[in-house]
Amino acid sequence: MSKTAVLLIDCPDRKGIVAAIANFLVREYDANILNADQHQDVELGLFFMRVEFATQNPACDEAQFRHVFTPLAEQFRMNWRLTFATPTRNVAIFVSHYLHCLADLLDRRQVGELNCNLSLIISNHENARALANFHGISFHHIPITTANKAQAEHRQRELFAAHQINLIVLARYMQVLSPDFVRAYPQQIINVHHSFLPAFTGAKPYHAAFARGVKLIGATSHYVTEALDEGPIIEQDVTRISQNDQLPDLVQKGRDLERLVLSRAVRWHLNDRILSYANKTVIFA
Amino acid sequence: MSKTAVLLIDCPDRKGIVAAIANFLVREYDANILNADQHQDVELGLFFMRVEFATQNPACDEAQFRHVFTPLAEQFRMNWRLTFATPTRNVAIFVSHYLHCLADLLDRRQVGELNCNLSLIISNHENARALANFHGISFHHIPITTANKAQAEHRQRELFAAHQINLIVLARYMQVLSPDFVRAYPQQIINVHHSFLPAFTGAKPYHAAFARGVKLIGATSHYVTEALDEGPIIEQDVTRISQNDQLPDLVQKGRDLERLVLSRAVRWHLNDRILSYANKTVIFA
Amino acid sequence: MSKTAVLLIDCPDRKGIVAAIANFLVREYDANILNADQHQDVELGLFFMRVEFATQNPACDEAQFRHVFTPLAEQFRMNWRLTFATPTRNVAIFVSHYLHCLADLLDRRQVGELNCNLSLIISNHENARALANFHGISFHHIPITTANKAQAEHRQRELFAAHQINLIVLARYMQVLSPDFVRAYPQQIINVHHSFLPAFTGAKPYHAAFARGVKLIGATSHYVTEALDEGPIIEQDVTRISQNDQLPDLVQKGRDLERLVLSRAVRWHLNDRILSYANKTVIFA
Amino acid sequence: MSKTAVLLIDCPDRKGIVAAIANFLVREYDANILNADQHQDVELGLFFMRVEFATQNPACDEAQFRHVFTPLAEQFRMNWRLTFATPTRNVAIFVSHYLHCLADLLDRRQVGELNCNLSLIISNHENARALANFHGISFHHIPITTANKAQAEHRQRELFAAHQINLIVLARYMQVLSPDFVRAYPQQIINVHHSFLPAFTGAKPYHAAFARGVKLIGATSHYVTEALDEGPIIEQDVTRISQNDQLPDLVQKGRDLERLVLSRAVRWHLNDRILSYANKTVIFA
Repeated sequence: MSKTAVLLIDCPDRKGIVAAIANFLVREYDANILNADQHQDVELGLFFMRVEFATQNPACDEAQFRHVFTPLAEQFRMNWRLTFATPTRNVAIFVSHYLHCLADLLDRRQVGELNCNLSLIISNHENARALANFHGISFHHIPITTANKAQAEHRQRELFAAHQINLIVLARYMQVLSPDFVRAYPQQIINVHHSFLPAFTGAKPYHAAFARGVKLIGATSHYVTEALDEGPIIEQDVTRISQNDQLPDLVQKGRDLERLVLSRAVRWHLNDRILSYANKTVIFA
Repeated sequence: MSKTAVLLIDCPDRKGIVAAIANFLVREYDANILNADQHQDVELGLFFMRVEFATQNPACDEAQFRHVFTPLAEQFRMNWRLTFATPTRNVAIFVSHYLHCLADLLDRRQVGELNCNLSLIISNHENARALANFHGISFHHIPITTANKAQAEHRQRELFAAHQINLIVLARYMQVLSPDFVRAYPQQIINVHHSFLPAFTGAKPYHAAFARGVKLIGATSHYVTEALDEGPIIEQDVTRISQNDQLPDLVQKGRDLERLVLSRAVRWHLNDRILSYANKTVIFA
Repeated sequence: MSKTAVLLIDCPDRKGIVAAIANFLVREYDANILNADQHQDVELGLFFMRVEFATQNPACDEAQFRHVFTPLAEQFRMNWRLTFATPTRNVAIFVSHYLHCLADLLDRRQVGELNCNLSLIISNHENARALANFHGISFHHIPITTANKAQAEHRQRELFAAHQINLIVLARYMQVLSPDFVRAYPQQIINVHHSFLPAFTGAKPYHAAFARGVKLIGATSHYVTEALDEGPIIEQDVTRISQNDQLPDLVQKGRDLERLVLSRAVRWHLNDRILSYANKTVIFA
Repeated sequence: MSKTAVLLIDCPDRKGIVAAIANFLVREYDANILNADQHQDVELGLFFMRVEFATQNPACDEAQFRHVFTPLAEQFRMNWRLTFATPTRNVAIFVSHYLHCLADLLDRRQVGELNCNLSLIISNHENARALANFHGISFHHIPITTANKAQAEHRQRELFAAHQINLIVLARYMQVLSPDFVRAYPQQIINVHHSFLPAFTGAKPYHAAFARGVKLIGATSHYVTEALDEGPIIEQDVTRISQNDQLPDLVQKGRDLERLVLSRAVRWHLNDRILSYANKTVIFA
């Protein structure tokens, strides 16, 4: 039986990497390379590669691959990650008042765009419960106050553990996560910010955009790091506005951007198409 | 003989403005309204209007219009400006090392997109001279040093006076204008900044965009005010970049954006399609 | 109490229309013009106007307006339509296998983007029933065969009558409506076609786009007329594809375009922002 | 001394191609793979690859490469092409009345965007002569009538031979080339058509777009084949239009699209980034 796996690599750029990897996969696993994509960051002298391959070799699993691949990885000083197509990842979605990104993700899951289990919806409000129930997803109402924040995060992390969550999506979740929380899930938390970052960080970006008189508004999806709105950008998009557009129109047009950039980020993450380095991302799309 | 004029108005929003203006034009000038466009800024309670009209009434000139329109303008507390289609405006272009925006504007003038006299090209370098000569435009090399800056600006302003310049275009001019200079030409200086403002103000925006890892780069044309890169935005555009794009690719893709946003701003200004208020612009395009 | 109404006009272009209408509204209703927008089709010599106004005059209703406005309308040979903000319209959605446009419209209704009652969902399949039930919308499964088509359409029209439907949205409905049916609802049926019309009319447009090797794919929303895929275009959008995109990727990217162009068309229609003439549309957006 | 070369390959998709090529380049030339990009057309079962490599092996030239690579190429049934970075290609530009694309290409050559010699400008009109002279490019006025067409093409082909032309760019050239002419330069003639193909083929596409009431207009660059407007599409772009845009506005907005799609196609061709197959193109951009 054939297995499919994705190998993501970054390392200092030097001669022979592509051939070395291709040879390794053919020699060890008689692999069929389904897709190979590579890039350089010339400024930083870095090399990035994504290889999707199929093999019929039953020996090939994560442990065995680590064993045989490590010498090559060390030789080229690679960071690397191997993911098999199965099993699918377990995803938790955080949401507050605005449900449009949540509804969009649920619909895309339905349509088959998102290769994952949507296991868990957590909100500091009650209003997403009906939607969660309709889709048969476990819903947890965890209110947040300054007093109970640590406790609330503890409860959230228990739920993650119970559901073996490996991706957390902040779908317009209006609470700031603690540094501890963020550090516990590196490159596993995706947020959507409703501006074209780095413009208009912080609260009320549509108000700020309106006040500045920009001619395009944007939205940004990014991995969450301890520095608010400063994590590696995954995707951005913009749309034109005019003087006909008042503040509520910006908010409405912005919702479409938020849906698009967040859903693309989630899909790419789930398909192992994102490599993050130096606070930037490489997207193998 | 028929004359065409453009009336631009902004005032506090209240009932009856559209009817009052339409009536005035019909009553005084038996005018044919060729185009009327209006907008509100709901936040600020402001009203904006652009009316393009034709009249055969020979009495209608700037002085006479001012005389008969003033009572109405005062009643509604209007800021207003009337421009007749003739004569065409005289434009000065400032340029430094990079000539792509200059070449683009010259070509658009040739094609008939820009309704103006390109009267003057001023540069702190020599390399635009051949292009200026080819197009038969007066070229002046005015080097800038910290020592001679005041003197250089004095010389520039003499040239403006001699050529009756009423629009100054900074086509990638790499010198900062003095506050005095800027104040002398309010809403008559258009600059292009090679980023999606307000992101990446200041020097080397493509470097900054590359370092931040944004997924789109932009360019912005704006009126110059004393606060660097903070004047009213006239036009913006963006283009997608990917990890395949290294710094020189950003610069190359950015040139196309710079050409587009600067030329649109110049064209709209020349056609009296821009109204500026509260450090923003309304574009009647 | 103040009422808000939208007046849509098209007529041959000539002098004095704007003033005549503004005067009429002020004189008859002491109206506050909230928004006025006008356009010309220079080729055809036509004039278009949308006026949104508020009045406190209790006399102003549809019948009385018709009575007092008719002389002016006849003088300028106007086609015109007046709509009061209330009551909201009743909408029927037709759907087949693919539910993404339906789910999108339902979510937008929830968020408050669509000013209407979603009264009715009709499908030739069963799979939309759960979604309809969740949103509390009347669902009717009406299978279509060549044999029962006339009968099925009869049943559909009975439902429209019962629900006082004034807009029909074909949200990826895969059946062709009969000419009789189409004629019965002029400019009241909106369809989404999954190509950039007029390219790739007919069945399987993504396959055709893939085969032709285009670099952008599109989607189009339009009013349905008897000529398939040839009604007045309301909105179009496109997205870039690359050689990385295989047929299923086109379908997936296309879904986002379909959601966007269909929902915009429905919103504009519901807000009386569309004027249709000469098989084209003017959008007052 | 190091040489850089680009290898473009298409062949039936099967296991082992990437490894085979990487191995070959390392074994024969101790090559440094600077860039490798590959794609599949899943529908047609085809594989495409572009490899840019550097080698210090002095033996590596076109003849020697052909000799040692042929067995591998035959094994995988490859179509392939090898190009060394030097010497640069010689380009001829054809132009008629409209000069904006020509002016744009000349400016881009100046700026350094186009890696080629612009050797020759041919026109059926005189009006490009001044521009050609300014840029020091050989200009030939070759009028075309139905009577002299064969003769004119003969003259053109003599000029190509004399200047060793290997790319012909039709920069809004308004004459149809004969089948013989087209066959003589397969995938060496690039045209720009002022519509979003396959919509609006043939003459006056802006008129047709205006009449149909589309909401976006486009432009397309493509390789010229015997079937008019049906060659492999290289690049397309679109821009939004509104009811404010009359026919001359479409023409003006279209010029920007024409400049962009034609210049991108020329640049990609010159950098060996285009692979053409099955009347489509793969762009390694």
